[in-house]
Amino acid sequence: MHTVIRILGLDPGLRRTGWGVIECAGTRLVHVACGTVSPPDDAPMAARLARLHEGLTAVIREFMPDEAAVEETFVNKNPASTLKLGQARGVVLLVPALAGLPVAEYAALLVKKTVVGAGRAEKQQIRAMIGVLLPAAAPQTEDAADALAVAITHAHHRGSAARLKLAL
Amino acid sequence: MHTVIRILGLDPGLRRTGWGVIECAGTRLVHVACGTVSPPDDAPMAARLARLHEGLTAVIREFMPDEAAVEETFVNKNPASTLKLGQARGVVLLVPALAGLPVAEYAALLVKKTVVGAGRAEKQQIRAMIGVLLPAAAPQTEDAADALAVAITHAHHRGSAARLKLAL
Repeated sequence: MHTVIRILGLDPGLRRTGWGVIECAGTRLVHVACGTVSPPDDAPMAARLARLHEGLTAVIREFMPDEAAVEETFVNKNPASTLKLGQARGVVLLVPALAGLPVAEYAALLVKKTVVGAGRAEKQQIRAMIGVLLPAAAPQTEDAADALAVAITHAHHRGSAARLKLAL
Repeated sequence: MHTVIRILGLDPGLRRTGWGVIECAGTRLVHVACGTVSPPDDAPMAARLARLHEGLTAVIREFMPDEAAVEETFVNKNPASTLKLGQARGVVLLVPALAGLPVAEYAALLVKKTVVGAGRAEKQQIRAMIGVLLPAAAPQTEDAADALAVAITHAHHRGSAARLKLAL
């Protein structure tokens, strides 16, 4: 018998933040739900961030995950875009922390390696592997598929992260 | 007679976010309070952002500002630092928006021009002018002084920002 852990994976973005909830019992993974929060493009920045906060708070309230995992975002060459992405990412890290969840971060490279087996995997390969690993999932967007991939990565690595913390 | 507006100025940073509250009645400005929120350096990112959220929420609850103004942050050459600054800035924009305040953003150059009269002003010049414009203020840190400078900038430009919105 294994404890069932519910994991929320998050792929942050200002225009679209993907989210995916899975359950993990030992090595068995089950899809619960996934989707995308898309704040309006034309609103002022603070209002967009408030909508992102609202959308993710509603997801946590509905699916009550035990732990959260956030993709460590690709650092863009353009500083203005990086700053905007950082602003969305700040809210994406904050919301589960405010709900009292432990929040882990995983590099995009590790997410790809865990899910596809190769660090240079294409978006389509990730989506195909989500279909294999979570057959009940039918993510409507790449962001939702990426969020499920982050949740799967946490399911695989959360044990070693916990051991690492104990060792510190 | 003028309506008294209470303005919260914010200078975002992950290690230190400065805040300053002033009252503005026509052209008259009065200092109310200022300070710094400093989340612990050694905590995980999500926990640091949660502490920043908590600190700024407490400031808004205590001083009940009507409007907020945030400095548009200098875009660093280092993408990793820019992303981190963006994360703090996301929380700094979010908190007043969640409290229902309108949130304005001002470029650092405009803040310096408004307070010192020159866009290339040094930190010390800003602090000196805060002493002239808000004699009752005694900011303990540069971040708190900068936050008061942002609040003063909003006091000067909020009218034209409102007119601009009406014109759109």
